[in-house]
Amino acid sequence: MKFFINEPDQIVNEAINGLLTNPKLAKLDSFPEIRVVIRKDWDKSKVAVISGGGSGHEPAHAGFVGKGMLTAAVCGDIFASPTVDAVLSAILAATGPKGCLLIIKNYTGDRLNFGLAAEQARALGYEVKTVTVDDDIALGQDVKKRGLAGTLFIHKIAGQLAEEGKSLEEIAAVAQKVIDRTASIGLSLTECQHLGQEPTSRLSDQEVELGLGIHGEPGIEVVAYAPADHLMALAIEKLEAALSTDTNDRYAMIFNNMGSVSPIEMSLLVNAFSKTKLAAKIDYMVGPAALMSSINMSGFSVSVLLLDKEIESALLADAEPLAWQLQSFKRADVVVSSPKLPETIPYEASANEKVKELIEKTGALLVAVEKEINGLDAKVGDGDAGSTFALAGKRLLLVVDKLPLNDTGKLLLTIGRILAREAGGSSGVLLSILFTAAGNTYSKDGDLGRALLDGLQKVKDYGGAKVGDRTMIDALEPAFEALAQKESVQIVADAARKGAEYTKTITNTKFGRSSYLSESVLRNIPDPGAEVIARVFEKIAALK
Amino acid sequence: MKFFINEPDQIVNEAINGLLTNPKLAKLDSFPEIRVVIRKDWDKSKVAVISGGGSGHEPAHAGFVGKGMLTAAVCGDIFASPTVDAVLSAILAATGPKGCLLIIKNYTGDRLNFGLAAEQARALGYEVKTVTVDDDIALGQDVKKRGLAGTLFIHKIAGQLAEEGKSLEEIAAVAQKVIDRTASIGLSLTECQHLGQEPTSRLSDQEVELGLGIHGEPGIEVVAYAPADHLMALAIEKLEAALSTDTNDRYAMIFNNMGSVSPIEMSLLVNAFSKTKLAAKIDYMVGPAALMSSINMSGFSVSVLLLDKEIESALLADAEPLAWQLQSFKRADVVVSSPKLPETIPYEASANEKVKELIEKTGALLVAVEKEINGLDAKVGDGDAGSTFALAGKRLLLVVDKLPLNDTGKLLLTIGRILAREAGGSSGVLLSILFTAAGNTYSKDGDLGRALLDGLQKVKDYGGAKVGDRTMIDALEPAFEALAQKESVQIVADAARKGAEYTKTITNTKFGRSSYLSESVLRNIPDPGAEVIARVFEKIAALK
Repeated sequence: MKFFINEPDQIVNEAINGLLTNPKLAKLDSFPEIRVVIRKDWDKSKVAVISGGGSGHEPAHAGFVGKGMLTAAVCGDIFASPTVDAVLSAILAATGPKGCLLIIKNYTGDRLNFGLAAEQARALGYEVKTVTVDDDIALGQDVKKRGLAGTLFIHKIAGQLAEEGKSLEEIAAVAQKVIDRTASIGLSLTECQHLGQEPTSRLSDQEVELGLGIHGEPGIEVVAYAPADHLMALAIEKLEAALSTDTNDRYAMIFNNMGSVSPIEMSLLVNAFSKTKLAAKIDYMVGPAALMSSINMSGFSVSVLLLDKEIESALLADAEPLAWQLQSFKRADVVVSSPKLPETIPYEASANEKVKELIEKTGALLVAVEKEINGLDAKVGDGDAGSTFALAGKRLLLVVDKLPLNDTGKLLLTIGRILAREAGGSSGVLLSILFTAAGNTYSKDGDLGRALLDGLQKVKDYGGAKVGDRTMIDALEPAFEALAQKESVQIVADAARKGAEYTKTITNTKFGRSSYLSESVLRNIPDPGAEVIARVFEKIAALK
Repeated sequence: MKFFINEPDQIVNEAINGLLTNPKLAKLDSFPEIRVVIRKDWDKSKVAVISGGGSGHEPAHAGFVGKGMLTAAVCGDIFASPTVDAVLSAILAATGPKGCLLIIKNYTGDRLNFGLAAEQARALGYEVKTVTVDDDIALGQDVKKRGLAGTLFIHKIAGQLAEEGKSLEEIAAVAQKVIDRTASIGLSLTECQHLGQEPTSRLSDQEVELGLGIHGEPGIEVVAYAPADHLMALAIEKLEAALSTDTNDRYAMIFNNMGSVSPIEMSLLVNAFSKTKLAAKIDYMVGPAALMSSINMSGFSVSVLLLDKEIESALLADAEPLAWQLQSFKRADVVVSSPKLPETIPYEASANEKVKELIEKTGALLVAVEKEINGLDAKVGDGDAGSTFALAGKRLLLVVDKLPLNDTGKLLLTIGRILAREAGGSSGVLLSILFTAAGNTYSKDGDLGRALLDGLQKVKDYGGAKVGDRTMIDALEPAFEALAQKESVQIVADAARKGAEYTKTITNTKFGRSSYLSESVLRNIPDPGAEVIARVFEKIAALK
């Protein structure tokens, strides 16, 4: 398996250095022996809020350092608690007279190392309080165990209260309240893989894990792989079992990507969540995003925090870390009325015998040459050019009496709409662009040749081809130019024919399917589109 | 391969519905035939800025709908352009008298469908301008081809100018300028996989693709898999070749996750980027984050935009979509001086013969029983408990003359520090917590028994064990309680012994390694830690 790494033992250091391209962050100069990321603008005038733990959970924890959240984060090796000295360094660097709150995830290593550092800091005269986050409810609310993504709620709220100048006592008390009101559950399709190692999995393609940890430890249950809605329902059912059933409860939610779920899947999972009963109680969502990841685990976790006024106000305040993004949440029921799209033929019919004849003859021609043109296209393209033109011809024949035959501008626009709806493929859209744009210009300008040249310019702009690229443009452009110069219909038809003949000599084009074909295949075969255009103008010239 | 999906043909619809849990967004009620996401608060009073294209690029494009960016986004199927009618619906729904800018990524399907919709809207009297983004420089600056993540710069800047009330003319002109100044390059370890299909790869484990597209099309070059720094240097070298060499140029950068790169790798890649010459010219970074993804591609792209005053000001303005997050960028050179950690023995030595004898005898005991206690631990634990205590004993014997023997509080703190630095394992940290916390309390309170009980409480808090869990707490707690009640040393020792004996009867514990062992293994074997504690108090009692 391939990863974006250099030396495996430098992954953590390099990832922290990547984060430090944010000029608001600094590291202690004992880095990398001791890995402490700290607010650069920190002046110790308020309570310091410090967290941390093993690495591999990015952006947690260092990505949440910033005004309104963490003052500093202490980073261990991948999934390994930082040392006592590292935690003590963070406390000493960040703590002023108002003291410091340590937010510890409930793992033995973190509890011991952060706990001892707290005791040592107290011995040095620092005011330190600790809280331990155990939001995992995989085993039920009473057996709260591990600290999961819900930890970020405590970072946010304690960080905000610190920013507001609250005392350590107050902040620790609210932090504990937030912990008591937070619950998390996760589900993963695959475990995380340690970067630089060959992937292994204890899970088959038919198994997923419910109640996961964030260090690759097995989930509480292995359940059968199923559609996303079903898996989400399973996870949320477990989560709801740990929550009160009061329908007045309002929650904030962290919707966490465990590392490598694709963005489209995460959005689909939010939709799956919105179908659960719990969704009706959610007022805010942080995510969907990787917030407390487990390296590259393909899984998600949902953390909910039961709101009260004090919590909600601290939660909604702005915080500097960009990794923290909260928005309102509501079930997807917001619709806006669609505009009525115009009818395919929006104008009143009008009579003009000459125009009618022109359309009928042209339509009949397009139908008649279908097989021949398909044959040409089979040699140099995908063999359906004749059918595309024939389809347009048939449709025109069918509706000719409903067309605004006596209003050239409207007629051009209408043909454009018919081609958009009825003709297939890129050439259908391109011809539709030609007629629609020409109709737009003609309506203002009243000059057919200039209008068609204008439409052709749009075809070139949107389609990307130009004269010499072996397309119908090679016949259209000389014909339209002749038309714009008020030449006779015969001269216009001759110009189109000359253009079509010219395409027989174009054997080196970078445009379209012909670009894949060799010179010997292309030589002496006209571009089928250009050939059709020449035939059409020849037919029109013959009408006179 | 497992994915979080339901019916494969509903992926796009469900992902859009997930996004619509954001109450600031709405969809047209022609959903899902026509998929248009639009600002809910849109009043058509300003220029509408519309983009879109195939899905599979989440959060682009619908995730960038919001004040200050897109007015509406039109979503096609995965990697397929939306229909002309869908684009036209978006234009009609969003466009007021000031007109509308369509931002098109340079793919034939998008150009044709957006282009025709623009022409049709003009036919209906709407003011519509289009710009086409071709930021990909994989083939060099002169052969700009595809629209990649750089497109988001145009969304942001056009969206901001629209918000400021600028005219369609002005906005289109600036948008074109931004396009001309934007360049992107990408590199991927693996192609994207279509959700719900079995994964395939044209790349071996030794190959990566440089100059990627965002629809799974092959990269311009296959290069050898290499360390991240090397791969980044390759990509940036290609990017720099398309940029001016003016050292005064300042850029903003989009650092894009193509879908499934883990957060720690993305941060490491930012660090890799910071080592390139180009990094010195970067003032701002959006990301690292999935912004214009390619489903679940394991790759990244870097887009840069050459700043000028007008662009910079529009770029830095706040925008509502949470997927857009810009921060300042600078190379990682910010360090804060580490606090000086206290010496292991921070206090002056002082003499007290009785205390010295106690420490020496205790130290000698711990060394003497190493083998015996290891033997016990081999039966019920991991066999090293004796060595842990012996190591602590040896260290105490070595430094006894440097200790503040005549100041109980400082002595407790010092022993705590020695244990933290010198004793290994959880029990070393736990004993260090015991002594450090006891020292902290003793310094205020002056009562040894109460201080030790306080320290023990911290051991329980941080370690998680309590009486009855078959740990040294079972001996420590009764001994400390006797001590706190001013009982004689003999009674204290008896209490410790009784506690150690009690551990022989604990055969059902949920704590620590013993929890994995059967009753028959545990019966009549004392907990090795508790046994050591009993021996220590017995030794102390014998001193008198």
